[in-house]
Amino acid sequence: MKSHTLLMPLDMHLHLRDAVMLENVAPLSAYSFSGAIVMPNLVPPVETAEDVIAYKARIMAAVPNDSFEPYMTLFYKNYNKAFLESVADEITAIKLYPAGITTNSEGGISSFDVEEMRPTLQAMSDMEIPLCVHGETDGFVMDREAEFMSIYELLASNFPKLKIIMEHITTKEAVDMLDKFDNLYATITVHHLILTLDDVVGGMMKPHLFCKPIAKRPEDLDALLSVALAAHPKVMFGSDSAPHPQHKKESCGCAAGIFTAPIALQLLCEIFEQFDKLDNLQAFVSDNAQSIYGICPEFKEVTLEKRPFVVPENYSGVVPMYAGETLSWAIENVD
Amino acid sequence: MKSHTLLMPLDMHLHLRDAVMLENVAPLSAYSFSGAIVMPNLVPPVETAEDVIAYKARIMAAVPNDSFEPYMTLFYKNYNKAFLESVADEITAIKLYPAGITTNSEGGISSFDVEEMRPTLQAMSDMEIPLCVHGETDGFVMDREAEFMSIYELLASNFPKLKIIMEHITTKEAVDMLDKFDNLYATITVHHLILTLDDVVGGMMKPHLFCKPIAKRPEDLDALLSVALAAHPKVMFGSDSAPHPQHKKESCGCAAGIFTAPIALQLLCEIFEQFDKLDNLQAFVSDNAQSIYGICPEFKEVTLEKRPFVVPENYSGVVPMYAGETLSWAIENVD
Repeated sequence: MKSHTLLMPLDMHLHLRDAVMLENVAPLSAYSFSGAIVMPNLVPPVETAEDVIAYKARIMAAVPNDSFEPYMTLFYKNYNKAFLESVADEITAIKLYPAGITTNSEGGISSFDVEEMRPTLQAMSDMEIPLCVHGETDGFVMDREAEFMSIYELLASNFPKLKIIMEHITTKEAVDMLDKFDNLYATITVHHLILTLDDVVGGMMKPHLFCKPIAKRPEDLDALLSVALAAHPKVMFGSDSAPHPQHKKESCGCAAGIFTAPIALQLLCEIFEQFDKLDNLQAFVSDNAQSIYGICPEFKEVTLEKRPFVVPENYSGVVPMYAGETLSWAIENVD
Repeated sequence: MKSHTLLMPLDMHLHLRDAVMLENVAPLSAYSFSGAIVMPNLVPPVETAEDVIAYKARIMAAVPNDSFEPYMTLFYKNYNKAFLESVADEITAIKLYPAGITTNSEGGISSFDVEEMRPTLQAMSDMEIPLCVHGETDGFVMDREAEFMSIYELLASNFPKLKIIMEHITTKEAVDMLDKFDNLYATITVHHLILTLDDVVGGMMKPHLFCKPIAKRPEDLDALLSVALAAHPKVMFGSDSAPHPQHKKESCGCAAGIFTAPIALQLLCEIFEQFDKLDNLQAFVSDNAQSIYGICPEFKEVTLEKRPFVVPENYSGVVPMYAGETLSWAIENVD
């Protein structure tokens, strides 16, 4: 049987939520990933060293001993340098949300005034703390990410030593930015390597394929695949796996977010094999992230086999992408 | 209190379905409209004179005596002239669906071969039977209508005396076609005078605002408003009101269709008043259709008043657009 082994898979953009949801979903990521960049958009957001330490402790309590490294993030505000120095040891990155742009982002940034942000961003640059950005304006849904490119340009050119990660990119405009600025990087989800808007609303409307940023056009999908399959050195896998209870997805107003954590590696094998690029998956799912973030995850070896895997209908009340459907790769063994 | 009276309102694109659903929704249209063009996409579709006569009888049985005229349509196939002559007296138009493009359209046309369609379309032209068209390709969801323009051009130029109605148009490309071909007309829904894709998937995902063709971009909305508010003489109101049971809208795979029949006139008053064009609403909602189709509806006078109207949460299990929300116009009286 055909198999493929991945070393230290990393999920560079993950929502673990809190409380019961955290307890339900964290073990699923911990099973197949060495570590993950954990998003800080709790209610209230993760904003202090104490918040970070306490949240990390709750995550560690939810996963089997030493099986998983949560790389913690802080919710971006215009912090002063003294504060950043006090929290630097506890975090791997700081995550910036435009205000109100996605789930629990109400406390985010409402105007991108470089001079107002300069003390924080310059300090982050000096201290080598990467800035992760949810790059969308509040414009028309299909244009939001492309419109945000001017803000990436502003940030990247004003802080040329600051590592800026364009999170969960979905457009060819964002892909094009990778080669324009040395300090711009990107994460790409697995669902954005599969979906276009057609899959979300082209036939029936599919709440479990609805996320922010929304899946875009076929030419955008092609651009994302081109850099992911080539394991472009500035591109990393980040699932943006976002669990919501089933009733919040299947209702009059469906929350944004696709739950992929437990099926991400299987799907990635399927995609990379389909394009005959399995050899590049290791770089996309781990090596690039290690280089970009300068992190050294604990050893973990995940072996997948090419055999049918029926995706469970739900994981503790959370419906995953492709619930009930059959994938062509399964996780065989984790060491 | 401000009031506005409409004479013989007509809904030039309506789905009444069949059986219990028909009995539930037909009286709602019959209350405020003089008549409606009734779509033939039942299961199986309305394809024979007997089908038409029987369906019309079921509709008439579902509405109060003589309160409503159902203008019947036939599901387009490449019919021969003898057949068309036998059915002509029973129908007002023939509705063409590309195969599989929307609810119950599996038996539609899969290739637009003009020579194959010529006998039917020439006979319809000679007999002055209008052709209503669901104009979408099977392409990317945001491009489907614009891509279909070349087929409208083909049909309009090959059959210059055939009245072709571009149904439920949603794009500026379709609006532009109105002035390019004398024999192209259009219906516009009330929801496409309000929504863009932003309303459907820009915030939460909204199944009750999901329809085909899907609401498009802001510039498309502007183009639709420009011809509707001006009561462009080739443009008519057609609700495309499409009832689905609540469970088929709020689920893993939500069916396409927005139910607006009982709130359409109220919403139209709101929109036309907002743009100070209430005087043009009569032409948009009745006079243009009478001229284009050459129909003379029975007298009906509908008076609306500007006062709050709370949209019911559902009508016999069908959730309408804006359920539970408050509109600024209400139907006061129908004579």
